[in-house]
Amino acid sequence: MNYFSSNFKLGILGGGQLGKMLLTETRKLDIYTCILDSNTEAPCKIGSNEFHLGSLMDFDTVYQFGKQVDVLTIEIENVNIDALEKLEKEGVTVYPASKTLRIIQNKAKQKLFYVDENLPTAPFSRFAYVSEIEDAIENGGLKFPFVWKAAQFGYDGNGVKVVRNLEDLKKLPKGECIAEELIPFKNELAVIVSRNAKGEVKTFPVVEMEFHPEANQVEYVICPARIEPEIAKKAERIALKTSEAFKHVGLLAVEMFLTQDNEILINEVAPRPHNSGHQTIEANYTSQFEQHIRAILNLPLGSTANKAGGIMVNLVGAEGYTGNVIYQNIEEIMNMEGVTPHIYGKKETRPFRKMGHVTIVNKDINEARKIAEEVKNTIKVISK
Amino acid sequence: MNYFSSNFKLGILGGGQLGKMLLTETRKLDIYTCILDSNTEAPCKIGSNEFHLGSLMDFDTVYQFGKQVDVLTIEIENVNIDALEKLEKEGVTVYPASKTLRIIQNKAKQKLFYVDENLPTAPFSRFAYVSEIEDAIENGGLKFPFVWKAAQFGYDGNGVKVVRNLEDLKKLPKGECIAEELIPFKNELAVIVSRNAKGEVKTFPVVEMEFHPEANQVEYVICPARIEPEIAKKAERIALKTSEAFKHVGLLAVEMFLTQDNEILINEVAPRPHNSGHQTIEANYTSQFEQHIRAILNLPLGSTANKAGGIMVNLVGAEGYTGNVIYQNIEEIMNMEGVTPHIYGKKETRPFRKMGHVTIVNKDINEARKIAEEVKNTIKVISK
Repeated sequence: MNYFSSNFKLGILGGGQLGKMLLTETRKLDIYTCILDSNTEAPCKIGSNEFHLGSLMDFDTVYQFGKQVDVLTIEIENVNIDALEKLEKEGVTVYPASKTLRIIQNKAKQKLFYVDENLPTAPFSRFAYVSEIEDAIENGGLKFPFVWKAAQFGYDGNGVKVVRNLEDLKKLPKGECIAEELIPFKNELAVIVSRNAKGEVKTFPVVEMEFHPEANQVEYVICPARIEPEIAKKAERIALKTSEAFKHVGLLAVEMFLTQDNEILINEVAPRPHNSGHQTIEANYTSQFEQHIRAILNLPLGSTANKAGGIMVNLVGAEGYTGNVIYQNIEEIMNMEGVTPHIYGKKETRPFRKMGHVTIVNKDINEARKIAEEVKNTIKVISK
Repeated sequence: MNYFSSNFKLGILGGGQLGKMLLTETRKLDIYTCILDSNTEAPCKIGSNEFHLGSLMDFDTVYQFGKQVDVLTIEIENVNIDALEKLEKEGVTVYPASKTLRIIQNKAKQKLFYVDENLPTAPFSRFAYVSEIEDAIENGGLKFPFVWKAAQFGYDGNGVKVVRNLEDLKKLPKGECIAEELIPFKNELAVIVSRNAKGEVKTFPVVEMEFHPEANQVEYVICPARIEPEIAKKAERIALKTSEAFKHVGLLAVEMFLTQDNEILINEVAPRPHNSGHQTIEANYTSQFEQHIRAILNLPLGSTANKAGGIMVNLVGAEGYTGNVIYQNIEEIMNMEGVTPHIYGKKETRPFRKMGHVTIVNKDINEARKIAEEVKNTIKVISK
């Protein structure tokens, strides 16, 4: 198949910031790309060959969109999987596969998959309703504190809460969920595994994540992670095994906990470019976005090595501001060594909304970490 | 001025590959960008906020387009300068300035400028018509061989010829031209100087260019150049002096000859992102395209240092092929270490047409050079 300057069409479900960064790569390789998104002001409205307006959860919309393309991928998991399954049966190449998305979309299924596949993950219980948790607490089957996770449609800290008492429990949404043992961990790590259909596999270097204590959003992604080489190797091995278990094609971002006694437990996975890989745009030989395109088109995978150390800082809306966005002090951070802002192009900010990210590249990762903190303390996403 | 997510509009005259690579940066920073180009299939048709169809040489078209934007720049020199001058008078920020473009657009004026500014350049004579060259030859004022350059609208080897005899002379176009002494040079070097309006200046590392012997197009751009540090310093000094002489804002690419006795002579300049800086996308902390945007918007300039060695190979149409383009063996080159193709998205190939470029990044520049040759020998731009 000649993807370049031919009649080939790539479809992407979702037109947010991940889609926007994928479009940078499809433009670079001149790959004809169609986007489906329900937002008339989606970041991907510019940069695609075709922008289709419609719901990602609607069977017909996704099916009709998918029938027009040769390869279909996603930039968000919450899409109509039945439509993908039908498209696969009718010969459209869909990566990630509908089967994989069905497992990942539901956190309870995802956890059960790890257990079935003998992949390390924190102990958990599954509940059809939150009310069942109360029963479990009463009869001693579950103890405070634990981590509650909504089974469906949770992302970026939404749908995840540490539950310490009955009070906390009463505030939770009512639907299907899991209760996971609260693991005291030293560190959160992630590895992005890339694999193409012919079976070539490459992992990006292990990254270390620092989370915002309240919003439960990543504050810094640090690559390479400042950990022992044996731990890095172990994390890579587990990530590779996870990707194999899914027989995954494309990118699989595997988020893991490093426990106090150096055990590694899988937290969750994302079958697409991921927040923990944004720094690869500047810091690595191949960016995660280019690699995703290479993988799903069955092209040779690029080198995943670092050219230099990279740190990513999320640009999220400041608390107390909702409305037309302003990036306060952006010029000041552009004056810092090796700093590149990425602005996603969302018009309205609100507290903790992801509005962009900043990459800090430096040969010395500790120097990069210092600059990252300066960046964090300088720029502020507010409204007019 | 808040450029990010505001009512600010950037205008670019020209919608070719340089514009396309500028759009990658304006998308990254979410800067609203309008393009003017006469080609309905220009590479910039996708990725801009507004695409305007019209002639870059037409006064009214350029003027009306310019009136709608806050800052106006170019990606090609051949634009209507009178319109730019009027726009400047009416308060539109135009970089490069009309005065600079007027000097650069005409190679005779450009050469005289170097002489006036005491900048080193090869000796030359100016002729209003080619017929005057014959007279000069007859009366002994000029001797074969010499380099003929059309004064107007020459680029990428068009409008430049080595003239060795009367036969060669008769084949030349008739208009204004210069005859330059044929300098036996060791090497061709280039330095891209970036400067913003507040006077901050940064030079990209010196690159070394290898030309295709017949087409007079760059075959490899090698960064950093494999030359003595003192030579590099000298080249940087001359490039800086040239940029100062023009009081230039934006990028100024200064192409130079390194003579057998280590003299440096300015060949010509380009007041915009340049073919000799494409490898900066992958190899440098800040790409020339991001730097151009930073400079013309008076933002702080980014670091110009190399993250790793970078080599750029032009992808030009193979001889004997005209028509719908195919990139033969593109998958093979994507399998080589540190190789990234850039496809400009032109539908039709023809001999020596610039269709794309390939970047090779490697910590070891000699290793990169080997891979670059492999790339060059593997990929072929042909037609169906």
